[in-house]
Amino acid sequence: MTVSVISKKSVTWIGQNLAAKIDQELFTKYGFKVEQLMELAGLAAAQAIASHYSRGKVAVLCGPGNNGGDGFVCARHLQQFGFNPTIIYPKESRNDLMKNLVQQCHTSNISIHQTLPNNLKDFNLIVDALFGFSFNPPIREPFNEIIKNVVESGIHVFSIDIPSGWNVETGIPSSAGENQDQAYIKPHAVISLTLPKLCLQNWTGPHFLGGRFVPQGLVDEFKLVMPKYPGFEQIVKIDDVY
Amino acid sequence: MTVSVISKKSVTWIGQNLAAKIDQELFTKYGFKVEQLMELAGLAAAQAIASHYSRGKVAVLCGPGNNGGDGFVCARHLQQFGFNPTIIYPKESRNDLMKNLVQQCHTSNISIHQTLPNNLKDFNLIVDALFGFSFNPPIREPFNEIIKNVVESGIHVFSIDIPSGWNVETGIPSSAGENQDQAYIKPHAVISLTLPKLCLQNWTGPHFLGGRFVPQGLVDEFKLVMPKYPGFEQIVKIDDVY
Repeated sequence: MTVSVISKKSVTWIGQNLAAKIDQELFTKYGFKVEQLMELAGLAAAQAIASHYSRGKVAVLCGPGNNGGDGFVCARHLQQFGFNPTIIYPKESRNDLMKNLVQQCHTSNISIHQTLPNNLKDFNLIVDALFGFSFNPPIREPFNEIIKNVVESGIHVFSIDIPSGWNVETGIPSSAGENQDQAYIKPHAVISLTLPKLCLQNWTGPHFLGGRFVPQGLVDEFKLVMPKYPGFEQIVKIDDVY
Repeated sequence: MTVSVISKKSVTWIGQNLAAKIDQELFTKYGFKVEQLMELAGLAAAQAIASHYSRGKVAVLCGPGNNGGDGFVCARHLQQFGFNPTIIYPKESRNDLMKNLVQQCHTSNISIHQTLPNNLKDFNLIVDALFGFSFNPPIREPFNEIIKNVVESGIHVFSIDIPSGWNVETGIPSSAGENQDQAYIKPHAVISLTLPKLCLQNWTGPHFLGGRFVPQGLVDEFKLVMPKYPGFEQIVKIDDVY
């Protein structure tokens, strides 16, 4: 199955504040439950991965927040699509949302580990769901070390929404004059959720977009230009086509 | 986009008790939230509709229970797919799940009515999300009257999981010797969720199947034969192919 392509210029690129505002309104004014939108986000990420990579062993790195939650949902759908996912979940969250996601994956026979496996090279792909658009530097341990090991492994990384360690607006830390010792993911491909964030404006690798759920009222309120999804697809690809 | 076809013989057909048990286990042992599975169910229904019917005005009849909830989610996704949905919600439920679904559709500018519109003929399609697999006869008013009007209108009806008014296992009421005055939907097409129910075994019209989320543990526990979904699809079509 092929994924339709849209132009970089045909969507609004958003910063950290607007991303947070949109998220907040979806849950308050528009009455969405985080579980609903997370299910669609994780499904879109899994679809993007399935459209781009061969089936095989995938390590899904899940942070303690909602980006990590997207990772859990993505892992579940990847398994349904014939992949063999393993979850790396270094810092367990105590909230019920994350506990339920752990239970779903655990009972789906997806193994969950606290540290990177020694045999990282056995994996065909690593999904980066450590930090999302609400991340603010610095990255603390054990995540800094994990990211360094992932980058050193040379294995292809697929980032969900934000490549972990990047500034949501300015991109890789060194380019913003930030602490250069901070590790950051060098992704092979990325999926943006809802709308692409500013940090990816100069990104030239594969770039998917998912999140076909934004209500028209929200589009009008923030004057957003939404992507034109074809048919009944949940994802498109962003490229330099005009 | 075409939808893959599977054989009637390549899935388990289930009765009311097993459907209820599977549902119960998904929410307890497997830790799913109803919002997650309802989002996937409604999305699958909307995809099936978008694969089969032209875009246009759709009336979505939503009952007070979870089948109605699937209808609300379906309406939301239908709007995203370019349809123009209107919801008919005759009996408002007081639970938070349904209230949130109403709020989502309301803020998405989907109009919600308590009674059938006078201009029913203006609609290209009616989605039947009144009663699901936990329905037990008889149908009470105002639903009996609504169903009679829908049938009389002659407009194509797409039923979610169970055509409303049917016995989940034996099908249309008269065939089971039940009260023949009870109205029942005569669908044009159906989507079964999770697995097809016994009442549809002799059904020869278009029949979609959605619900690509059943964990392997549950498949093993109940010795279920699940459909083989291709690629990263959420729906397949059931037919008499071998």
